[in-house]
Amino acid sequence: MSEDSGKKLTMVTCSAPVNIAVIKYWGKRDEELILPINSSLSVTLHQDQLKTTTTVACSRSFQEDRIWLNGKEEDITQPRLQSCLREIRRLARKRRSDGEADVDTAGLSHKVHICSVNNFPTAAGLASSAAGYACLVYTLSRVMGVEGELSVVSRQGSGSACRSMYGGFVQWIMGQQGDGKDSLAQQVEPETHWPEWLCLEVSAERKPVGSTSGMQTSVETSSLLKHRADSVVPARMKEMIEAVHKRDFTAFAELTMKDSNQFHATCLDTYPPIFYLNDVSRRVINLVHRYNRHYRETKVAYTFDAGPNAVIYTLQQNVEEFVQVVKHLFPPETNGGQFLKGLPVAPTTLSEELKQAIGMEPMVKGISYIISTKAGPGPRVVEDPSEHLLGSDGLPKESA
Amino acid sequence: MSEDSGKKLTMVTCSAPVNIAVIKYWGKRDEELILPINSSLSVTLHQDQLKTTTTVACSRSFQEDRIWLNGKEEDITQPRLQSCLREIRRLARKRRSDGEADVDTAGLSHKVHICSVNNFPTAAGLASSAAGYACLVYTLSRVMGVEGELSVVSRQGSGSACRSMYGGFVQWIMGQQGDGKDSLAQQVEPETHWPEWLCLEVSAERKPVGSTSGMQTSVETSSLLKHRADSVVPARMKEMIEAVHKRDFTAFAELTMKDSNQFHATCLDTYPPIFYLNDVSRRVINLVHRYNRHYRETKVAYTFDAGPNAVIYTLQQNVEEFVQVVKHLFPPETNGGQFLKGLPVAPTTLSEELKQAIGMEPMVKGISYIISTKAGPGPRVVEDPSEHLLGSDGLPKESA
Repeated sequence: MSEDSGKKLTMVTCSAPVNIAVIKYWGKRDEELILPINSSLSVTLHQDQLKTTTTVACSRSFQEDRIWLNGKEEDITQPRLQSCLREIRRLARKRRSDGEADVDTAGLSHKVHICSVNNFPTAAGLASSAAGYACLVYTLSRVMGVEGELSVVSRQGSGSACRSMYGGFVQWIMGQQGDGKDSLAQQVEPETHWPEWLCLEVSAERKPVGSTSGMQTSVETSSLLKHRADSVVPARMKEMIEAVHKRDFTAFAELTMKDSNQFHATCLDTYPPIFYLNDVSRRVINLVHRYNRHYRETKVAYTFDAGPNAVIYTLQQNVEEFVQVVKHLFPPETNGGQFLKGLPVAPTTLSEELKQAIGMEPMVKGISYIISTKAGPGPRVVEDPSEHLLGSDGLPKESA
Repeated sequence: MSEDSGKKLTMVTCSAPVNIAVIKYWGKRDEELILPINSSLSVTLHQDQLKTTTTVACSRSFQEDRIWLNGKEEDITQPRLQSCLREIRRLARKRRSDGEADVDTAGLSHKVHICSVNNFPTAAGLASSAAGYACLVYTLSRVMGVEGELSVVSRQGSGSACRSMYGGFVQWIMGQQGDGKDSLAQQVEPETHWPEWLCLEVSAERKPVGSTSGMQTSVETSSLLKHRADSVVPARMKEMIEAVHKRDFTAFAELTMKDSNQFHATCLDTYPPIFYLNDVSRRVINLVHRYNRHYRETKVAYTFDAGPNAVIYTLQQNVEEFVQVVKHLFPPETNGGQFLKGLPVAPTTLSEELKQAIGMEPMVKGISYIISTKAGPGPRVVEDPSEHLLGSDGLPKESA
């Protein structure tokens, strides 16, 4: 925390990770508090590849709360932003009235300036709201000296943001209470538990699709979604937690694929139907099943969120070959330019047998790039003051 | 029935219609008897546009049962063909032993030659097995003098064939008995009940996809399919029958679309997932929803079977405009050649308002043609002997 004595500016910068669900969240039982109709489970991805960075500054001189996202000022009165601000301030006041020592009492009456950037382009097709709200709530809590269970707060910004409050393998327990106090995230295992576990983000399209309205239509019209939430997910959560504990990749992978498919099935059962998968997505799905069938072993899994981009999970020992398979079917020269980003993956050669087993023709312009990454830790404070996104005047720096 | 006195050849030719389900059949509880896990409902399409024609000849001189399908001799020992032959012969023997007068006793001990052709190319993407088995069973029954409820027999050839045994709007009641005697088709309303009702077959691809193995995998792996069959379809059947009785197009259309989507949702919930819809199918689905939204009225419905081809239902008064909309988005010059087949549909002009409301770019090579048709009658005997597909030698004529 740095303080500019002249202007009494308190500033904190933090970063937070993206998470990708393997048991999907789709459907709210309370729109305002963002309470889900089923529990979900995700993997937090490493911030070296994908992260949101947020600076919050607090000063007596600020006239109003303001927010800049990816270089553009946005409307701070947006209800979900307001929910998070209000909750953090409420918790801070509570701590102060409880007589906790380290609460920055000044900040409570001051307005905040918030500046947030993603290190990945929107083109990556990643829903950035999870990392964004996790980072906002985490940073605000550091500025205002709030501690404790903050996933219930970030949940009110974006449901899946609660899972970005922890590293590794994380569950969002749906909870039962009307006030949502028991609808929170919990770490199942830290990222160090399964170091061989790797992830590839396979980007097919420019823009992620907003999920809020689709989710609501699904809850209203899909009888399959209700059945899924009530009768399918509870058992799957148990199985998935077990698979993670045991590092059982086969069980993990199969359940991940089944749950992704079931989520998209409930979207299709929505009226009017919602389609997130396109012909490229289907191609990736078929590719994964053919690859696994060739080896008579589930070595690779796919999952798709509210968009056509695949997220692939595999273990360290399979990543080089599988990336080569993707390159074979989506040749970089006719697809993206700088194809492979993130963790380095060495090129390899594919056996003719494998190519034949997959038996698909290479495709032009199917995907634009792959980001290779792994499981990572939760939000953290960025200690280097040069990384602040706001200047000493409380406004975004040129670069932010 | 014609008889060649020299060779004692008995010959009958019949034709049978295609049917398209609006409440879908997907999943068997008994593979051999073909007993479904839920009831279904379909519309029988008019044979002027789409039909199977089958000639069965019966002669003491035939050495063995033989079958020719679309000009090619096929394996008669195929289990489902054998089921139908065995059942019809059993019913004929029963009638004879019951002392019924008009049973052709000679035919019972004789072998049969069967020749069958479709008047639509396989490229139409229509599952021809329903019309094929309905026609086979109907023709065999006429040769062997069998009467009564024959849908239980054609059901054993191909499940949906039982619905092609009647004209108009037809339900397949799933039944409860283990022997399948109560799993049969029933006419809900004849084709004359709703003369304004029209149908467009929108052909996107060459080949229909076999459904038997997919269906089995769905039953084994999709928990959503079980829920659909047990808890969703019974109420939908009642609603659909009601909609047909009342000629309530809005109810008919919405239920048709929801049920098509739910069927494809259960395919996606299958593991590994089954995809029948492609990007062109999705385009047609979006088009229909935009068209209806523009008019704030459900004027058009889609349904998709085990393939990417859309079947569109609408009423007489909307068909010209909707066909024009399809032509606008899939321009005939860059799609199929002779675009519109079947019942004539006059060209019309689209309002700019409608084009804007749809707001989609025309697509190249999306669909190959549209067949315009209506509801029609069930199987019938073809009286003109020149239409026989087998010659007096019991072998296919040149043209067959």
